[in-house]
Amino acid sequence: MKKLINKPEDVVKEELMGVALAHSDLVRVHFDPDYVVRVDAPIANKVGIVSGGGSGHEPMHGGFVGMGMLDAACPGAVFTSPTPDQMLEATKAVDGGAGVLHIVKNYTGDVLNFEMAAEMAQMEGIEVASVVIDDDVAVQNSTWTAGRRGVGTTVLAEKICGAAAEEGKSLQDVAELCRKVNGWGRSMGMALTSCTVPHAGKPTFDLPEDQMEIGVGIHGEPGRERMDLKTADEITEMLTEAIVSDLPFEKGDHVIAMVNGMGGTPLIELYIVYHKMVQILEAHGIFVARRLIGNYITSLEMAGCSITLLKADEELLRYWDAPVKTAGLRWGV
Amino acid sequence: MKKLINKPEDVVKEELMGVALAHSDLVRVHFDPDYVVRVDAPIANKVGIVSGGGSGHEPMHGGFVGMGMLDAACPGAVFTSPTPDQMLEATKAVDGGAGVLHIVKNYTGDVLNFEMAAEMAQMEGIEVASVVIDDDVAVQNSTWTAGRRGVGTTVLAEKICGAAAEEGKSLQDVAELCRKVNGWGRSMGMALTSCTVPHAGKPTFDLPEDQMEIGVGIHGEPGRERMDLKTADEITEMLTEAIVSDLPFEKGDHVIAMVNGMGGTPLIELYIVYHKMVQILEAHGIFVARRLIGNYITSLEMAGCSITLLKADEELLRYWDAPVKTAGLRWGV
Repeated sequence: MKKLINKPEDVVKEELMGVALAHSDLVRVHFDPDYVVRVDAPIANKVGIVSGGGSGHEPMHGGFVGMGMLDAACPGAVFTSPTPDQMLEATKAVDGGAGVLHIVKNYTGDVLNFEMAAEMAQMEGIEVASVVIDDDVAVQNSTWTAGRRGVGTTVLAEKICGAAAEEGKSLQDVAELCRKVNGWGRSMGMALTSCTVPHAGKPTFDLPEDQMEIGVGIHGEPGRERMDLKTADEITEMLTEAIVSDLPFEKGDHVIAMVNGMGGTPLIELYIVYHKMVQILEAHGIFVARRLIGNYITSLEMAGCSITLLKADEELLRYWDAPVKTAGLRWGV
Repeated sequence: MKKLINKPEDVVKEELMGVALAHSDLVRVHFDPDYVVRVDAPIANKVGIVSGGGSGHEPMHGGFVGMGMLDAACPGAVFTSPTPDQMLEATKAVDGGAGVLHIVKNYTGDVLNFEMAAEMAQMEGIEVASVVIDDDVAVQNSTWTAGRRGVGTTVLAEKICGAAAEEGKSLQDVAELCRKVNGWGRSMGMALTSCTVPHAGKPTFDLPEDQMEIGVGIHGEPGRERMDLKTADEITEMLTEAIVSDLPFEKGDHVIAMVNGMGGTPLIELYIVYHKMVQILEAHGIFVARRLIGNYITSLEMAGCSITLLKADEELLRYWDAPVKTAGLRWGV
């Protein structure tokens, strides 16, 4: 295992100490229980937004804490759900009296723990709404998942709901907006290589030198099909067509598109995928109104990519364009 | 070779087509000869700034074209210098009458070709100044290099000089500033793995599973020493101490620090390195005033990192903080 780490059990703590030192203008890091929280939280009368999940997907979620996006993020151990205790403390830390939205990726551990945290917070008098993101079209059920997995749409939901909360929308409105984003967002990913969880010390799965995994999950869960390597154009077509046909996206739709690297993919390759994806979408009469290209929801050092498309109307585009100031996403300020 | 590409010979063209589609609000891409140029170039009476080099280091340089940074970037084939023709055309495209600065990384091909382009541009009546960046403390000479290699300080020089040009400084002043940045900036990198140039189809070098290369170049050139794997803390100490002792940086210095991923390193690991680096610098009485943590000057999918420290006074910090709007670096707008 080749990694820039010290002891596997210290990876998340030491990362968080680095985040605390690097971004003290944006966030504070609370330890035991661990969460990353906006320096200016809680903000009176603003809906607080909390997300979280296993570590290893950086910059998601801790890198998205800041003005216009998340109020707090709860990092679990690598690829392991954070605990209800973390989520409860983060919820309390961001409650400014207008309630708190939990944005939850659809993995069994995350869903159960966020449910428990929401109940505990409500017992303490904090209004909590929860929205589960389940946008991965690859497979219906999966390791650790009942239903579809929650992947790239989470990043877009955090940005858009963050903007709405910043604008002063109510908890009910922000939760409704989050459900709209989840309903209109679809993703699919693929892996050229596995990744290695530090604690495990060996690759999560074996993928021969001439094969790839189409529809892979962000923890290396099996996807739709293992097959021989194909060209970037063929891979992009498989991902894009699976996504477009699922909603289905239609001629005339505007979309926010994300071409996401899994952590070990050069940016040069993501632009090749982006180029082909736009051609395919144009043939469908679908227009890319906004885009993100880079590493946003990763799987450690996995080589591969995912595509996320979010059908976007005026409302979503306006929230998308609103200022955001986080370590992982920043514009307008 | 596992890559998201089509034909190896089309990698750069297809990437540039992706960049053109993705960032048409920021840049235009000119083909044959290839260069990426600000949409609003040439800007009357503003010094134009041109850089370039082999592809495979994205987001550098094409991702740094835009307001407050580069006016144009010339991408060569992967790890291969662009041609004088590309550099000449880019220079002409950004000349707004105040002259053009070439920021050149110290590799023999880049230096020769930029020299030739500068001469040709001057014959066409364009005033050109050139500054060669040679900040890599690892080795004195190297494959393709007389003297030290040009690495991470290039990113910082492009940001700082871009801000000065935006402010209306003269060519002489911007070139002087660039020399100051090069004089005050130092870098060193390391590799856990090799990378694979698409055309070559196999790793640039062999690095056994239990070994690493300290002082590696951004094309996989040999560094100071190949040795057994060490912890992140030990690696960070080797890099940081080599850099600090070279200038030398001194107690009371403020620095702009970059902890850069080589392309295949998870962000979580870069924050672990950042954390240790800050501790080491604090022990020297050196204060990190600004920082970048992420993939800025990469080597395809190489796993590893580099550290760059730039001694910073009020002038450099002011230019650093100025607004920048590029695909790879953005703040203030």
